[in-house]
Amino acid sequence: MLKTAIIMGSTSDLPVVQPAIDILGRFGVPNSVHIYSAHRTPDELADFAKAAISEGYGTIICAAGKAAALPGAVAAHTTLPVIGLPIKGSFLDGLDSLLSMVQMPTGVPVATVAVNGAENAALLAMQILAVSDVTLREKLNNYKAQMHDRTINS
Amino acid sequence: MLKTAIIMGSTSDLPVVQPAIDILGRFGVPNSVHIYSAHRTPDELADFAKAAISEGYGTIICAAGKAAALPGAVAAHTTLPVIGLPIKGSFLDGLDSLLSMVQMPTGVPVATVAVNGAENAALLAMQILAVSDVTLREKLNNYKAQMHDRTINS
Amino acid sequence: MLKTAIIMGSTSDLPVVQPAIDILGRFGVPNSVHIYSAHRTPDELADFAKAAISEGYGTIICAAGKAAALPGAVAAHTTLPVIGLPIKGSFLDGLDSLLSMVQMPTGVPVATVAVNGAENAALLAMQILAVSDVTLREKLNNYKAQMHDRTINS
Amino acid sequence: MLKTAIIMGSTSDLPVVQPAIDILGRFGVPNSVHIYSAHRTPDELADFAKAAISEGYGTIICAAGKAAALPGAVAAHTTLPVIGLPIKGSFLDGLDSLLSMVQMPTGVPVATVAVNGAENAALLAMQILAVSDVTLREKLNNYKAQMHDRTINS
Amino acid sequence: MLKTAIIMGSTSDLPVVQPAIDILGRFGVPNSVHIYSAHRTPDELADFAKAAISEGYGTIICAAGKAAALPGAVAAHTTLPVIGLPIKGSFLDGLDSLLSMVQMPTGVPVATVAVNGAENAALLAMQILAVSDVTLREKLNNYKAQMHDRTINS
Amino acid sequence: MLKTAIIMGSTSDLPVVQPAIDILGRFGVPNSVHIYSAHRTPDELADFAKAAISEGYGTIICAAGKAAALPGAVAAHTTLPVIGLPIKGSFLDGLDSLLSMVQMPTGVPVATVAVNGAENAALLAMQILAVSDVTLREKLNNYKAQMHDRTINS
Amino acid sequence: MLKTAIIMGSTSDLPVVQPAIDILGRFGVPNSVHIYSAHRTPDELADFAKAAISEGYGTIICAAGKAAALPGAVAAHTTLPVIGLPIKGSFLDGLDSLLSMVQMPTGVPVATVAVNGAENAALLAMQILAVSDVTLREKLNNYKAQMHDRTINS
Amino acid sequence: MLKTAIIMGSTSDLPVVQPAIDILGRFGVPNSVHIYSAHRTPDELADFAKAAISEGYGTIICAAGKAAALPGAVAAHTTLPVIGLPIKGSFLDGLDSLLSMVQMPTGVPVATVAVNGAENAALLAMQILAVSDVTLREKLNNYKAQMHDRTINS
Repeated sequence: MLKTAIIMGSTSDLPVVQPAIDILGRFGVPNSVHIYSAHRTPDELADFAKAAISEGYGTIICAAGKAAALPGAVAAHTTLPVIGLPIKGSFLDGLDSLLSMVQMPTGVPVATVAVNGAENAALLAMQILAVSDVTLREKLNNYKAQMHDRTINS
Repeated sequence: MLKTAIIMGSTSDLPVVQPAIDILGRFGVPNSVHIYSAHRTPDELADFAKAAISEGYGTIICAAGKAAALPGAVAAHTTLPVIGLPIKGSFLDGLDSLLSMVQMPTGVPVATVAVNGAENAALLAMQILAVSDVTLREKLNNYKAQMHDRTINS
Repeated sequence: MLKTAIIMGSTSDLPVVQPAIDILGRFGVPNSVHIYSAHRTPDELADFAKAAISEGYGTIICAAGKAAALPGAVAAHTTLPVIGLPIKGSFLDGLDSLLSMVQMPTGVPVATVAVNGAENAALLAMQILAVSDVTLREKLNNYKAQMHDRTINS
Repeated sequence: MLKTAIIMGSTSDLPVVQPAIDILGRFGVPNSVHIYSAHRTPDELADFAKAAISEGYGTIICAAGKAAALPGAVAAHTTLPVIGLPIKGSFLDGLDSLLSMVQMPTGVPVATVAVNGAENAALLAMQILAVSDVTLREKLNNYKAQMHDRTINS
Repeated sequence: MLKTAIIMGSTSDLPVVQPAIDILGRFGVPNSVHIYSAHRTPDELADFAKAAISEGYGTIICAAGKAAALPGAVAAHTTLPVIGLPIKGSFLDGLDSLLSMVQMPTGVPVATVAVNGAENAALLAMQILAVSDVTLREKLNNYKAQMHDRTINS
Repeated sequence: MLKTAIIMGSTSDLPVVQPAIDILGRFGVPNSVHIYSAHRTPDELADFAKAAISEGYGTIICAAGKAAALPGAVAAHTTLPVIGLPIKGSFLDGLDSLLSMVQMPTGVPVATVAVNGAENAALLAMQILAVSDVTLREKLNNYKAQMHDRTINS
Repeated sequence: MLKTAIIMGSTSDLPVVQPAIDILGRFGVPNSVHIYSAHRTPDELADFAKAAISEGYGTIICAAGKAAALPGAVAAHTTLPVIGLPIKGSFLDGLDSLLSMVQMPTGVPVATVAVNGAENAALLAMQILAVSDVTLREKLNNYKAQMHDRTINS
Repeated sequence: MLKTAIIMGSTSDLPVVQPAIDILGRFGVPNSVHIYSAHRTPDELADFAKAAISEGYGTIICAAGKAAALPGAVAAHTTLPVIGLPIKGSFLDGLDSLLSMVQMPTGVPVATVAVNGAENAALLAMQILAVSDVTLREKLNNYKAQMHDRTINS
């Protein structure tokens, strides 16, 4: 089964990213968590991105704040779908990281989700993997049904 | 081969969306273009979204402007990955449509690309399909290489 | 007497919405509170909206945060006046929900009030009902007079 | 039948407001157009607002740009529902007029529609009048159906 | 000696406005504090503004938040210089009140100071009065010199 | 009679500033136009500001765009009321110059008017001078009455 | 003499960047222009940045629009001062590129200048080189004096 | 060895600026801290700036909030590279100070770093000094290597 990588620039982002790790785990999707920075460890980040397909990854989630170059730096080196998770910092509630991710130039998309939307980043990763994985699709459908029922019963 | 749907709320959005249609065609990815509105044809849109998996779609691109509810309305009815393409209107260069797409609530992600980033929406769709399609992956890698070479030779 | 519906996407919005419920109660306007989500329970929401006129509703208040599609999703299915109450979340003080509500496309208006302006949403609902209800108009005029006097005497 | 008033601060706003006048006319809703300014003719504006109910108005549309005090100045003197139509000027696409209208203090709501959304302002006015006017409701429903069909057939 | 009026829409604004009252007192400038609201007590506000010149006022400070129509409503009724003091509320740090004050239409200026800049509002009022008051000018010059010295000695 | 100075950073701002010069002329208020830059001619600007009171100026209008330090640089050297006129440049419709003017630190106010609001800058200057000039007050009152009548008759 | 590199992501940015090239030429500062993209040619860009010191560069100007990762990607690989020149694109006048450059994380600064401020980018580069180059300092001082005189004589 | 000056408008900014002072100290770069205000002590600030080159300074860091004229006021009087450090205040997380610094007019650049990015301001100052100081370059390279290693080992 294809793996999902979760990359963040610093361990300080972990509390925000944790819901993504949790839900991947609950769905039984193999995943690995990595600390790489586009600005402090650019070579290791590039190496990881270049090898991601051959290493068995199907999608990569990149969480970053401020001038959030991380997902774009990964997308520069792979054609895997890269999911950008903007982290809310101390400036305009993360507008800087949102724009740094979503406004990618033509040719190199980043699939951006809501600021601090870690669970949605993981759900999107699984929706992508589920395109060719009927079992995972079923799990997502069940999750959607449970979410529906919880709202109806609230 | 899984199809890609492109939905827009009005034919007036077609000039902005056209690059997405074009590149899907150049890559030989089967696609169909639909005019549905979350606010004017909500039932038909919901029906389309509910049937999309069984109809052979692998991903859905939704282009919309202003209070751009279209991709979220589709994502409400399917677990396929939904790509949001914000269209620039007459207010703050499309900030309204960008926020209406990217800030989705927990449980229902929309993979948002840049404002008016039609080609990137299509590339992301193909990156998603390529997770289980080696031939398409190869085409994306070639496209990436050509893009690289054009920049080097410019 | 025509009823007012209050819909919110989650019980977590209740503390912000409560002033709307309270003032409707104080004015003796029949009302009901519903938890429906445009993204998690779209079918039930559509069913409610389609039946609202025949069920005796005169106006519908929709409270939502982030990519706040709720009032637009209701307005897609009814010609009742729909009041949008943007809820302040964690991003730009609710600018996302404000724009997602107020920037509706031509043909499907949402009457938007201030971010977290629950009491004003209810007052607007009652102003609408009072167009054909002299008793309610009188109550609103009294309320306005009291508000005036409290300011003068403060 | 209750009348709808349309107030704007200057004849220069007329081209933007015209679609509101047109659609009220097409629906056969009696309406009148007025030039009053919250800042240049405050007394006449207040007099108009105070007399609006007794003069047979059911709702008032106020169009204004920049520091758009017009709808709030009307709402200060009446309990009729007041619809705010922000006009796009030369600063941030009308963000100034949008915020000057929608962010009304508690007790005095303004039902705000999209920037330059004149047709929606008029549709909202008619939705309000239709709460007690079955014939107008029918016309709105027909309009909604036609809008739906035009999108389906586009 | 000409008086300075300080108007605010609610006593809840008093803590922010207090530095203006304090510094006017320290400089011996006669002043009075009033609670008037452009939306809740429009007639009393208009009456005050119309009578301000004959009542011996030389300038009027208006403090307000949200859709801050207060200074403009005063300026509509007098040719005295009106100073707008935007109050920071819960939305975008007072950007709504700032724009509602500073973006006045041609013909009716409001002299706007910084968000929550109460002391500067009072200093501006005194600079205005000092145009024809040599003693007050001297006090302002002394204040400026002391401010300079405090910075140099810090 | 006290003079009004109009300072701008570059002759390229003259078309925007011209309405201020025109209306001062029409009202017979003595004025002079100066090209000084806070960044290119800081010493001459400071010299002008320091001498302004003794040279017979009663108020100073400063027009500038971008990082608009001009009015603050003048206010640093005089206790005359300084009026800031933000000029719309190529970035966010002059939001940069608006914030650079209006957000002055405590102790040194700038009376800021609307972006490109040249006529209002001059009207504010004359309102300030009219505090001690009955004839000018009368002219302002007449102007206000004419403005009122033009709106009523439009 | 140390060289200045000017990097841009695409030849389409050349018209905006040209004033930087021109003024470096007029001052006799050796410079070279390069087309590298952080997203399309990341390896070549990294190679250039890593070799820049040994190749005789003293500073590097990076011009980019949208999610402008270019200067940060260069700064990741060198301790030379990197100057970020945000290019105005079609979204919010370049706010996206400004924030993508200026909001760099701790440890990797980018010296950001105004949106489209090409000449200032080059002047800053020369100010940096002039720290150890008395002749260049003299040229900058002369330029500053001429700029001063042109303003005085305008 | 050339010195670095750190100027701030008030001692209240010291906690934010301290990391800049600390890292300059750790690197052994001579530095001095000054309290000067563009608006309260403009003459002393100008004098300092004019004398900075002859006093042995190589670069000047200016920290300021709100309408942050400080770095521009220094840059008006010297051709030394001036680094602008925007301080986050109570309005829009420092957007006012960021724009007041970065949007400098042509001819007078300010090298702007992130809001509250004190350490980066100091690193940029040292990168500038290191252009002609091999020992300092080595220290910066070591720092960069340590930062890299800390991320890899986290």
